[in-house]
Amino acid sequence: MTKVNEELALKAAELVRLTHEAKIPVMVLFEGVAASGKSRLANELLLALDAKYTQFYATKTPTPEDLRMPFLFPYWTNLPARGEVTLYFRSWYASLLDYEYHGFKKDIYKDYQVLQQEIEGFEKLLINDGYEIIKFHVEISEDKRQEHIEKTKENPLTRWKAEEFEHAIPKELYENGMKELISNTADISPWTTINYTERTQAISEMYEVIIDRLEKALKKYKKKKKPEVDGKFTADFTTDLFVDTEDDMSKKDYKEQLPALQNRMREIQYALYEQKVPLILVYEGMDAAGKGGNIKRVREALDPTGYEVNAISAPTETELAHPYLWRFAVDLPRTGHIEIFDRSWYGRVLVERVEGFASTTEWQRAYEEIKEFEKSLITEGAIIIKFFLVLDKDEQLKRFEDREKTPDKQWKITDEDWRNREKWDIYLEASKDMIEKTSTDDAPWVIVPANNKKAARIKALKTIIGHCEKRLNI
Amino acid sequence: MTKVNEELALKAAELVRLTHEAKIPVMVLFEGVAASGKSRLANELLLALDAKYTQFYATKTPTPEDLRMPFLFPYWTNLPARGEVTLYFRSWYASLLDYEYHGFKKDIYKDYQVLQQEIEGFEKLLINDGYEIIKFHVEISEDKRQEHIEKTKENPLTRWKAEEFEHAIPKELYENGMKELISNTADISPWTTINYTERTQAISEMYEVIIDRLEKALKKYKKKKKPEVDGKFTADFTTDLFVDTEDDMSKKDYKEQLPALQNRMREIQYALYEQKVPLILVYEGMDAAGKGGNIKRVREALDPTGYEVNAISAPTETELAHPYLWRFAVDLPRTGHIEIFDRSWYGRVLVERVEGFASTTEWQRAYEEIKEFEKSLITEGAIIIKFFLVLDKDEQLKRFEDREKTPDKQWKITDEDWRNREKWDIYLEASKDMIEKTSTDDAPWVIVPANNKKAARIKALKTIIGHCEKRLNI
Repeated sequence: MTKVNEELALKAAELVRLTHEAKIPVMVLFEGVAASGKSRLANELLLALDAKYTQFYATKTPTPEDLRMPFLFPYWTNLPARGEVTLYFRSWYASLLDYEYHGFKKDIYKDYQVLQQEIEGFEKLLINDGYEIIKFHVEISEDKRQEHIEKTKENPLTRWKAEEFEHAIPKELYENGMKELISNTADISPWTTINYTERTQAISEMYEVIIDRLEKALKKYKKKKKPEVDGKFTADFTTDLFVDTEDDMSKKDYKEQLPALQNRMREIQYALYEQKVPLILVYEGMDAAGKGGNIKRVREALDPTGYEVNAISAPTETELAHPYLWRFAVDLPRTGHIEIFDRSWYGRVLVERVEGFASTTEWQRAYEEIKEFEKSLITEGAIIIKFFLVLDKDEQLKRFEDREKTPDKQWKITDEDWRNREKWDIYLEASKDMIEKTSTDDAPWVIVPANNKKAARIKALKTIIGHCEKRLNI
Repeated sequence: MTKVNEELALKAAELVRLTHEAKIPVMVLFEGVAASGKSRLANELLLALDAKYTQFYATKTPTPEDLRMPFLFPYWTNLPARGEVTLYFRSWYASLLDYEYHGFKKDIYKDYQVLQQEIEGFEKLLINDGYEIIKFHVEISEDKRQEHIEKTKENPLTRWKAEEFEHAIPKELYENGMKELISNTADISPWTTINYTERTQAISEMYEVIIDRLEKALKKYKKKKKPEVDGKFTADFTTDLFVDTEDDMSKKDYKEQLPALQNRMREIQYALYEQKVPLILVYEGMDAAGKGGNIKRVREALDPTGYEVNAISAPTETELAHPYLWRFAVDLPRTGHIEIFDRSWYGRVLVERVEGFASTTEWQRAYEEIKEFEKSLITEGAIIIKFFLVLDKDEQLKRFEDREKTPDKQWKITDEDWRNREKWDIYLEASKDMIEKTSTDDAPWVIVPANNKKAARIKALKTIIGHCEKRLNI
């Protein structure tokens, strides 16, 4: 290593130490054809950084099991936390080209244009959240490339590696694909093409880009003002959206209808499994509206090996160190499975807006981010149904008091519930905005009157069954 | 559901709420032949518990990718944290029988006796750590079983499920295997056999066992005294184990030897990959002994897609909510990969003993636990080499002062390093005990004199290469 490069490496390492302290997450992508030198270049950087907060992730051709999860799933699960840095040896770009080359999930992605949109949405989301994404495309002269391949072939211990090069996606396909992707995505976060033919020069260039980008990121960080935190609520807010809280249902009707619906729900589960369709159910609504009990009736007859309930509590330390969508994106159902979210990513525009946990910009941006996120799930073939359970204020009071009086239910009621109740009106406004801004044809909000728990349960079951029957054609 | 069972369910749910609050982790296993009713029984329990801290894990036949990880890996990664409860729909027991039936990794497990030992070690470790393991074996009359299978076959939507029953491990093999496993492992944590022929009765029995076990666990928890925390250090401790701190190595020799060793190291990496052997390197030693720099020389020429450095910091909230081995057990290399631990599970008997983070019983027990853990890695085919880098006290002082004086190195030295230095003698004693108690033929400690960094690096490289050449026969 030359003196100059050694100094650049030290400088880069120091800057990454500072981004680590400033809790800025950094992603460095290395793309390039096989034997282009991207592994040797990535290794230079890897060796310069502190292993305590540095990860290295190598993209692989997906296994059949991997294909049961959304396209971006491996990148969500291998996302650096705030203050960490992850080096990607081939990234979502190579993965897109790999999917296309092998025709993976062609039936749902068609011409794979949709994956490029997802990549754009993913990067935008991360950048908005403070991620620094540095993208390298490594090139090499064909002579040098062949020289490297030959050398690898000569050594009996590395010969198999050379054979791998031959199985990779053909060079021209990769290069043409990348050229297009680079030109289409450079405006989101810039690409740098590095020619590895001259190794020393290539290393300098890499470090210079990294130093430049991190210096800018740190400068921006230092200049950053405390963001405005304002839920932007209206005085004397009223809405007609939630007036309908009462559906009628007698105990007799309920007992008659429930078993058949639950049996049908189980058949739906099997059909989902057979047709490999994931089902995502989202439950939001007023405190004590009966979300848990409603979910219980939906899942009661299901095969427990094929569904999961994700009941959202306050985020952990690790969850807080990632974008708010992260803890949901890493817990999505695989094909044919059901995931029920008891509260969800909508917390961003509900509790986080109300309590000021998200800045004004953050919760305002979230509507679009969430729509993009759900769109990507739909692209993957998922059915999404979102329930909003509506209770009126008097009924909530009755239920709170009942919980306090009943020994079995006391654990269900906390001071926080009472505090939230005082914010009834602003929760209403946040809920109304959410429903209006995020109801789409493919992921509709279903408002469920919930003063009568039985009616609410039957309505949820019928809604799920109806949507699924239509989609599954059964 | 009968009134009695409803009340039992409420009681069990209340107790799980209490174990949740007391941070007692609970595991409930459901074993049984296909169509025995274990899924319906597990579902009863699942529905009764709060989804906020309840998980459901279904054991599956491993994919080829799964087989690249140790046998217990899926159970380590799906272990409940303190205060959580996980229901296992088939467990490590069914998995053992499944491995045996399919002959998975027969070359390394031979008659699969070794897996039973691993299961025993796993359960003992968890129980010692406060886990409550409740094991059910579900039986059913053959008539009822056939009835269930027929019903599943009749419905076109569930017919494929019935076909699955036919592909499962044959009933007799499973039953005979389980009979033996149950009798061999009942003394670690008891089994309860439940006959599902009478559903109502079966549910009662399940709840009664759970209630009994959790009540006892809570009673034990309440009676628990604050454990003794004592590092048991000797006054005026001395040892000859670390007197050898000086190996000679000129700059010239170093520069001559290093590149060839690093090239060989890269060839070793490829051979490991080809022969599917995982390599685990553990680095411990005095502060400033040069672990990071040593690791850097070992990894410098490696292909970054095939190794990982796990540099251990203070545990996170999530890590603290699990047994101390957990964060290592979920980060093991898959076959053919290299994992380098910069500090390791030995923290339990070093820093945790010295600082009083582990109780006397805990650190004293850890030597055996760690040996079991490493033995299981070796069973899986891993090569383990453990380096202890030895510095003398004067040389450490020199390095500390040098770090303070050099702007580039200041981040490396903290108040904690100085505090640790004051505890030099007790760290020596902890280190000596560790080395004496955990050096085994298959996972030896290699003491590396580290006053001369160059000599230490060459020694580490030569040691790794020597071990690997012998094992890989290259």
